Amino acid sequence: MPELRKDPVIGRWVIIATERARRPDQYAKGAPEGPKEEACPFCEGSESQTPPEIDSIRPKNSAPNTPGWDLRVVPSIAPFLRIEGELDRRGKGLYDLMNGVGAHEIVIETNKHIESMSDLSQDQIAKVISCYIDRIIDLEKDRRFKYVMVFKNHGWSAGAGMFKHSKSQLIATPVNPKRVKEELVGARLHYDYHERCIFCDLIKQEIETKDRVILDIDGFIAITPFAARFPFEVWILPKKHSCDFVSLDMESRQNLAKILKMTLAKLKKGLNDPPYNYVIHTAPFRRHKSGYWKSIDYDYHWHIEIMPRLTRVAGFEWGTGFYICPLPPEEAAKFLREVQV
Amino acid sequence: MPELRKDPVIGRWVIIATERARRPDQYAKGAPEGPKEEACPFCEGSESQTPPEIDSIRPKNSAPNTPGWDLRVVPSIAPFLRIEGELDRRGKGLYDLMNGVGAHEIVIETNKHIESMSDLSQDQIAKVISCYIDRIIDLEKDRRFKYVMVFKNHGWSAGAGMFKHSKSQLIATPVNPKRVKEELVGARLHYDYHERCIFCDLIKQEIETKDRVILDIDGFIAITPFAARFPFEVWILPKKHSCDFVSLDMESRQNLAKILKMTLAKLKKGLNDPPYNYVIHTAPFRRHKSGYWKSIDYDYHWHIEIMPRLTRVAGFEWGTGFYICPLPPEEAAKFLREVQV
Repeated sequence: MPELRKDPVIGRWVIIATERARRPDQYAKGAPEGPKEEACPFCEGSESQTPPEIDSIRPKNSAPNTPGWDLRVVPSIAPFLRIEGELDRRGKGLYDLMNGVGAHEIVIETNKHIESMSDLSQDQIAKVISCYIDRIIDLEKDRRFKYVMVFKNHGWSAGAGMFKHSKSQLIATPVNPKRVKEELVGARLHYDYHERCIFCDLIKQEIETKDRVILDIDGFIAITPFAARFPFEVWILPKKHSCDFVSLDMESRQNLAKILKMTLAKLKKGLNDPPYNYVIHTAPFRRHKSGYWKSIDYDYHWHIEIMPRLTRVAGFEWGTGFYICPLPPEEAAKFLREVQV
Repeated sequence: MPELRKDPVIGRWVIIATERARRPDQYAKGAPEGPKEEACPFCEGSESQTPPEIDSIRPKNSAPNTPGWDLRVVPSIAPFLRIEGELDRRGKGLYDLMNGVGAHEIVIETNKHIESMSDLSQDQIAKVISCYIDRIIDLEKDRRFKYVMVFKNHGWSAGAGMFKHSKSQLIATPVNPKRVKEELVGARLHYDYHERCIFCDLIKQEIETKDRVILDIDGFIAITPFAARFPFEVWILPKKHSCDFVSLDMESRQNLAKILKMTLAKLKKGLNDPPYNYVIHTAPFRRHKSGYWKSIDYDYHWHIEIMPRLTRVAGFEWGTGFYICPLPPEEAAKFLREVQV
């Protein structure tokens, strides 16, 4: 069983993924080489190559784990966290730990062997978004979990797996991630003083100054953040205030699909298909309406952060939490604005 | 002039290093290829290839920037921060920024073309440590600076430069890095409740349980941390309480050189010379003896964090601050204990 362990000084949780372990001496050979070109287990017709599906978008009369689907969700074959069991929070002297209970699911975004999400149709991307929402709503019912992170690793150096088929991942965790907490606390501080959402303020200023705006269409905005960590880092935000990604209505899902497809297409065309990660930042589950989480409806604002991986991250960044971005976000935005897609 | 910009939500400072920028379209070609095999500008006899030295260990009768030295400190030729000018802290609407004022220095650890610090003599490593201390003391005099980070990037994928000559870096910053603040605040919380240093407690527990101890010699301990972020992550701590790296006496510098050399040699031999970063975590400058920083002498404990770079870091980690370590630190410690150096 994997373990969740807490750093006793700074309170950061780490997953010690015992069951994925290579033997210590295997690390001497360096990291695995790169993606495989074998038959892809995520394509239509290879349903038996994955664990049984948790969810799918497929015609009403078609059986699970058979061809004919539009989109499938399957458990990870090498999950970071395990769905079975209780948390069993406990101490070990100074240290805190709990069992690595959680969910780790793979969203197979298309039945065809398409490598880039930006090559999916807008309709198909809207289905992916709907699938994220359905899975988050389902996982919220499990009272062991506090958060669902939705993310994508595109390209080998961004952590993508052995097969290049376009997919994303969901991880449900029994603790709120540190970065999510920091955002919630920061947004609350601003709200307490100004009685306004900091992200709404930020969107307003970005639209006024224009320098960092890449796209502004149909209720969504794509910007390079003022304090970008990475060259060509992009955030996509809904212009209308909303703390919760799952509250997106059908029209907004189409609009989000449109801006996401265009943004990813600009990155692919302008930067020669760079490796990237994206992460959806949304409100944590709010079963316990107390303390900091109480009025999150007013002060938090969901968004997507896209992080191209074009530079090497060195000791300075890891050791200090201090990032060095070698490209001003204004120049990145100008470049991406001009890429025609 | 580079800019220091603050993320308005979570308060993270980022260096926007305008002067290092490649043009936006140059990123499309991917990251630079790897180290060069040209004549090394850091070797003895090539003194004119670097900017003039800031400091050096050399015989009394030898002139600066001539051969005969044991160790040299030179300014970075591509500094992240600039030594000239005032901070000029200012707002831009919602955002905070200041000029990228600071110091960025390179410590050339040997006059010979040696690639690994573990291949330097213990005496030479002690000289490197003394040099770090001298530079920190000198930079502390500059009242614009709040912190000096000392770090090393070994190996291309850990962010090392074009030439493999063993060296380390110092960056003096006008703000305290987020990660440093988090440690100070966490350590203070523990101290307020227990009236004991959390690192001292941690060392005591590690020595009792033994599972994560790699080396315990001459007043220093090398351990794999309980909540390790990376396989084979190692922390080196002084067993005797001390908040400040610069307070090391001559004997302790030799002892630190010994355990650092042994630890790096174990990593090199056991893991086939892996890329790694190390960062020295020490107390910030304490010119302003108030608030959280006041009694740091009692509650903080300097240490070195060594992070081998053997796994790919993916979207999950970047987006959430939640790390996944595929190797239990107990197994890593056992493996490193058994590597004979």
